[in-house]
Amino acid sequence: MNNDLKDLQKLLDKRRRLANAASIISYDLETICPKKGMSYESDTLTMLSSEMFKISSSKEFKDLIVKLYKEKDSLEYLDRVYVEKEYKDYLKEKNITPELNLKATNIYNEAFVKWIDAKNKKDFSLFAPYLKKVVDVSKELMNTRENKLSNMYDNFIDDFEEGFTTKDLDKFFADLKAGILELLARIKTSKHVIRSDFLTRFVPIYKQEEFSNYLLETNGFDFSRGAITTTEHPFTDDIGKDDVRVTTHYFTNLFISNIFSVIHEGGHAIFAQQQTDELFKHNLDNKMSMGMHESVSRFYENIIGRSKEYIHLIYPKFHELFKEELGDVSENELYEGVNLVTPSLVRTEADEVTYCIHIIIRYEIEKELINNNLDVNKVPELWNKKYQEYLGVSPKDDKEGCLQDVHWCSGFGYFPSYAIGNAYNSMYFEKMNKEIDVKKIISEGKMNEIISWLKENTFKKSNILNDKEWLKDLTGESLSASSFIKYLDVKYSDIYKI
Amino acid sequence: MNNDLKDLQKLLDKRRRLANAASIISYDLETICPKKGMSYESDTLTMLSSEMFKISSSKEFKDLIVKLYKEKDSLEYLDRVYVEKEYKDYLKEKNITPELNLKATNIYNEAFVKWIDAKNKKDFSLFAPYLKKVVDVSKELMNTRENKLSNMYDNFIDDFEEGFTTKDLDKFFADLKAGILELLARIKTSKHVIRSDFLTRFVPIYKQEEFSNYLLETNGFDFSRGAITTTEHPFTDDIGKDDVRVTTHYFTNLFISNIFSVIHEGGHAIFAQQQTDELFKHNLDNKMSMGMHESVSRFYENIIGRSKEYIHLIYPKFHELFKEELGDVSENELYEGVNLVTPSLVRTEADEVTYCIHIIIRYEIEKELINNNLDVNKVPELWNKKYQEYLGVSPKDDKEGCLQDVHWCSGFGYFPSYAIGNAYNSMYFEKMNKEIDVKKIISEGKMNEIISWLKENTFKKSNILNDKEWLKDLTGESLSASSFIKYLDVKYSDIYKI
Repeated sequence: MNNDLKDLQKLLDKRRRLANAASIISYDLETICPKKGMSYESDTLTMLSSEMFKISSSKEFKDLIVKLYKEKDSLEYLDRVYVEKEYKDYLKEKNITPELNLKATNIYNEAFVKWIDAKNKKDFSLFAPYLKKVVDVSKELMNTRENKLSNMYDNFIDDFEEGFTTKDLDKFFADLKAGILELLARIKTSKHVIRSDFLTRFVPIYKQEEFSNYLLETNGFDFSRGAITTTEHPFTDDIGKDDVRVTTHYFTNLFISNIFSVIHEGGHAIFAQQQTDELFKHNLDNKMSMGMHESVSRFYENIIGRSKEYIHLIYPKFHELFKEELGDVSENELYEGVNLVTPSLVRTEADEVTYCIHIIIRYEIEKELINNNLDVNKVPELWNKKYQEYLGVSPKDDKEGCLQDVHWCSGFGYFPSYAIGNAYNSMYFEKMNKEIDVKKIISEGKMNEIISWLKENTFKKSNILNDKEWLKDLTGESLSASSFIKYLDVKYSDIYKI
Repeated sequence: MNNDLKDLQKLLDKRRRLANAASIISYDLETICPKKGMSYESDTLTMLSSEMFKISSSKEFKDLIVKLYKEKDSLEYLDRVYVEKEYKDYLKEKNITPELNLKATNIYNEAFVKWIDAKNKKDFSLFAPYLKKVVDVSKELMNTRENKLSNMYDNFIDDFEEGFTTKDLDKFFADLKAGILELLARIKTSKHVIRSDFLTRFVPIYKQEEFSNYLLETNGFDFSRGAITTTEHPFTDDIGKDDVRVTTHYFTNLFISNIFSVIHEGGHAIFAQQQTDELFKHNLDNKMSMGMHESVSRFYENIIGRSKEYIHLIYPKFHELFKEELGDVSENELYEGVNLVTPSLVRTEADEVTYCIHIIIRYEIEKELINNNLDVNKVPELWNKKYQEYLGVSPKDDKEGCLQDVHWCSGFGYFPSYAIGNAYNSMYFEKMNKEIDVKKIISEGKMNEIISWLKENTFKKSNILNDKEWLKDLTGESLSASSFIKYLDVKYSDIYKI
């Protein structure tokens, strides 16, 4: 092995150990740590993060990266890929002074505190000056980049969905919006009534817990290398080697929230669990993009989880376990109920059809903030106008409007990934359907065959190629909204009989 | 503040942060970490432990301790106490070479692996040579001590119950044994039949979980500074500032196991939660001995938890929650059932009366191993003989005999603390009874009044004084078995009508 690589590996191993400790603590904070113990435990997390930063920002580390990048053609393939990725990050970060780094961190932290306050008081004007600071410092950071892209918003996209540009996304989102709004208009004309009374019935948590385990087991989550616990806002954490944690939140009067949360997070987890030891050895685990990750979680949540075949698969267990509470709900009523389309105000509660409209609104606004100097004070007005125009609904206050998401406290470019994930998965779902009989496989519960296909096709190069390359390699096509629109159209035309 | 103390505090703060991280990880390993993820996570724990060891064994740290010990009369009281404790540990450890330290660690780890194997194969002879190594290396370690005590076993006692000697414990255990065996003989003559059929009935876990929360809440556990989760072998972990975790294990066919586990561990936790910020600031948190800790947990488990008044207090909730499974069990039947006396083979399942006999057997044997070079191969024979003689029972194999406990894989002196805890708590219970109306307080569920008393009396100096000083200060008396024997005698004479 190359000696520089050996030296680098020592630093990476140390950083990884610290990252593992930090992950466990961060997970603990989100799941079990008692309220009053959080402050002390957070400081321990800060100590570990600072030890990690010391390694990454050390002269020794940086010199090795530069040196290895120069020698990259002599490295074996996976090491070269890793060095290229690390070098790209190095170029992004090399001109960030410790002062600027600290300034940004302080602005993000302050914005978070002010956001909570503004949200509680339902008053965006309290948050506006801090959002302005976040916009400014985020752009200031981008301006220091050695490998800066000329269209400012492209830099933000590059951090989440590498390879794509604002031009790509403008086209994608325009098509997506047109397609969804057209479908939505048709759905509104439907006379078909979907039964929804049972969706808010009381279901005790211990039964929901049993169902969560059943769903994860059914979908192929490996419990010997993972666990499920509860939290406030569900997430999945790839803690360390052979250890992926799924979390959920139980509502006694909204059982489907847990069901689709578990299926969604379980999707992230199954993706994480299929990464090989070889990737880990070459420091290439967890290099997939946000959009790739969301494509898998949304594939499980929507394309599989909300399909007729999957409802058919899980209905017997559902019926048996919830006999007392939901014994009168038929298989078809359950299928239709979990696919009810209702334009609404809150992104995280949106249905499969309208979800992307929430993302498009955020995309359009954040692009204005970054590229066209939109006055932050105009955000609520613009937000409300777009919600009325696209979805026909208007928030009664900023809390259920433009203050609902935490994301803008720490930067931009994250939201698009959610919608891009839907485009990715409907594109590779078309390919999957040509190669295996997905409907039959789901009906029969042979979910490992789905995993095998995803592993061989979707997952294989996700840690190696950037988004644009990966999508081309996987589907032979470029990013487009058409597969997703087609998928929605077929499914909802059937459900709503339109 | 003294400058040396400031320098020391910096090192202590760093060590404490690492210890906090290590605690969280160790807790995670025992509670949530999936099976196959344990190996990687354990290595992260080892990394953190080694960072902590680097600090404690550094020249800088040791020099500061020695220097501060010389200046101790100029320090404020709590700092002086801390320095004295740290200096004592320094004398115990200063001559241990890294080689000897490594040798001992390896022997303990090997013994643990061999113990598991021997236990599974129910064959002590497979463990015997490793037990011999543990005896030898433990004595070798003691022989390096600068402040070594002349009676070898005294050194082991000093690590757990500082201030007491083998002479003290010989007398204590002789009296304890005589008293218990006399009472046990009388109980055997009783004609009173205690109903026990319901003790092994099926009770679903979710109901047991609800009851656990109720019990902790009732006893005064502060959930804003603590949590309860599940594990294989229940323990309590004082994770960090304002963060104490209780764990339990649910058996669907042995509901009282969880009840008394939660009350016991809850006792440890309540003790830990009453430590003041001032103690924390002066590095004197968690300095109480094993025996003191056990005295509190056993006080809650037995003296409170198995009392007529406590059963009266919790019975309405018990009856309501478990109506379906245990609706036919009366308050008095529950009281008698949880106090059933049955000489048995397994320490952790023993009742309140016979429990200490299990400890006495271990004490007698380990003292022989340490002070009188007992041939390790004779342990099973001696063990079985004592069980037959004291309790009239004989293990059918070594697994339910001398291989049942893990403790001897890593040293000696731990077992006595369990029994000493019973002596402590019955001694301060006598004092408590003179000062407050304990029975009335429990019946009325005013458990905070118990906590207040314990805080003012039992807890106050537990992190400051050694065991002998603390007991004298608290009760005005020396260690004795008489209060405990008297307590058992009164309680069980009433239950068994003898």
